[in-house]
Amino acid sequence: MSRHNRRTPAILFGSLASLLLTATAAAQTNWLPSWNEGAAKQAIVRFVQSTTDPASAQFVAPDERVATFDQDGTLWVEHPIYSQVVYCLDRVPAVVKENPALAKTEPFRTVLSGDRAAIARLPTDELLKIVPAALSGMPVEAFQQEVRDWLAKARDPRWHRPYTELTYLPMVELLKYLRANGYKTYIVTGGGQDFVRVFAQEVYGVPPEQVVGTAGETRYAYGKDGKPVLFKEPKLLLNDDKAGKPEGIHMMIGRRPHAAFGNSTGDREMLEYTRAGDGARLAMIVLHDDAKREYAYGPAHGLPDSSVGTFTQALYDEAKKDGWIVISMKDDWKQIFSFAP
Amino acid sequence: MSRHNRRTPAILFGSLASLLLTATAAAQTNWLPSWNEGAAKQAIVRFVQSTTDPASAQFVAPDERVATFDQDGTLWVEHPIYSQVVYCLDRVPAVVKENPALAKTEPFRTVLSGDRAAIARLPTDELLKIVPAALSGMPVEAFQQEVRDWLAKARDPRWHRPYTELTYLPMVELLKYLRANGYKTYIVTGGGQDFVRVFAQEVYGVPPEQVVGTAGETRYAYGKDGKPVLFKEPKLLLNDDKAGKPEGIHMMIGRRPHAAFGNSTGDREMLEYTRAGDGARLAMIVLHDDAKREYAYGPAHGLPDSSVGTFTQALYDEAKKDGWIVISMKDDWKQIFSFAP
Repeated sequence: MSRHNRRTPAILFGSLASLLLTATAAAQTNWLPSWNEGAAKQAIVRFVQSTTDPASAQFVAPDERVATFDQDGTLWVEHPIYSQVVYCLDRVPAVVKENPALAKTEPFRTVLSGDRAAIARLPTDELLKIVPAALSGMPVEAFQQEVRDWLAKARDPRWHRPYTELTYLPMVELLKYLRANGYKTYIVTGGGQDFVRVFAQEVYGVPPEQVVGTAGETRYAYGKDGKPVLFKEPKLLLNDDKAGKPEGIHMMIGRRPHAAFGNSTGDREMLEYTRAGDGARLAMIVLHDDAKREYAYGPAHGLPDSSVGTFTQALYDEAKKDGWIVISMKDDWKQIFSFAP
Repeated sequence: MSRHNRRTPAILFGSLASLLLTATAAAQTNWLPSWNEGAAKQAIVRFVQSTTDPASAQFVAPDERVATFDQDGTLWVEHPIYSQVVYCLDRVPAVVKENPALAKTEPFRTVLSGDRAAIARLPTDELLKIVPAALSGMPVEAFQQEVRDWLAKARDPRWHRPYTELTYLPMVELLKYLRANGYKTYIVTGGGQDFVRVFAQEVYGVPPEQVVGTAGETRYAYGKDGKPVLFKEPKLLLNDDKAGKPEGIHMMIGRRPHAAFGNSTGDREMLEYTRAGDGARLAMIVLHDDAKREYAYGPAHGLPDSSVGTFTQALYDEAKKDGWIVISMKDDWKQIFSFAP
């Protein structure tokens, strides 16, 4: 902070700085090194260039540059099961310790047995009963610490790495590329808002206030020391999946995205809503078609169906009809994970 | 965008620019010209300087600089009645036109009569029945247009000005001062989130995604043209008042504010929650004690009580005990409105 600069009007430096930043961002051509040349990469670059060039008919004012990303299956691996469900399963012993009566009821009894085959046979509806129990009943800060501790020690069953390393490098590059061009990047996830907020800044560069997710109520109360505490309650406030995604976007952002990225039927309404806006609107959907480097699922392209990240033929047809760009993990991504070059 | 700049790394310009901006903002001493010298102004300046000086023990990282402002009675006039209630009253004829059966039921019948004395006699609970009816049942965009049209023609009964001119100049200066020092400014209002978002950017420089307010559900549906539409529903999703304020802040921002500003019992929990955080936390509360230039209400200081913007003796006592700074409109504000120097 030199003395000389103090006399210079802030407005001049503001404009100069943003001009320089824009020029430098636009000039750097290597924002997407993990993407192969092809229709997907081309669509991204064309969208960014046309919406940030003031001379373009598709120019989007900086304030309106909003891009939304699904998380599970779009930014990180969701198979064989959502990471947050693993977290909930791992928390069951602690939940039962606090409420011992649960040990005799399903699905807690089966989960506690540790019998993986039996756990895998639990119907999804039954299994999901552990979710509100695992994610509520404590102050917000205690929950955040639990998640941090879990992330530090949990490892996925295939690559034996922390779950936060199972992020897709091409998508992380895309997040950075959009931000370098003035886009505000949001995560809009069916996963838990409080869960994802714990690591989104570090892993994706997305701050807590830009994470929209499924959210339970909190309850304001006073602790024994008389200090205010927010307790996580088991009551659902926002189910941020399917139609809940555009509803959540309206609630939390209040603007229609200009770009949206998903991978399953849970993202359909968000992609439709994005495309239905005026001007340039980019909708992209990730197809998991790389069994060797990741997983392959979804009946489009004849891949096996999955209840985790469902990508139906109808969704594929809608993508084609409505002008969404399908991203093939196999063909469009040169590298999938930062740990596996 | 000169050719020369393209070769300069963005990161260098980024740091340089933010350094210059910070230096210039800090050096400008006249951010609060409408504030009289006194404890309130001193508390603000001391808070901003200590939380933005990297050498200070109270330094707050830029990402964590969150300031929340109540709207009614804190940023703009709330007497004799909330502007949004006037909006709802003005919309009653349109509501009844769409649903003629309402004309025979209270409170619609009385409101339609135009008998101001009778309307004023309606119990608050009864009167508030018009609110969900007036604020729902249409697509989000249609609602926004309604509000814009109303704001353009409605005038307040005392100064005969658009409601958006009844903002407090000292608070608008404070918003700008905080933003110039890296604070993200949020409105956290018991008023309608969708209502306030229509004008918050233009009037306060606060973008839609930084307006947290009472919110009803929206419902994703398809219009006759097959295009997706979000309909405003009469079901309450977030009651952003009292304990609902910290709950809404957690939901929408996910960070505890470092500074919060309010004026009534509806802001109590937000101010408590703010003060309960570690490090520097500024809580301020506006006392309406200037009947001549604005209004005077609240039993603290022996002013008459009011159900609109209640400021009880208990709230005043808590402010003193918990270290909140009371802003006296009469003593601390040199000028209240930009139109009345």
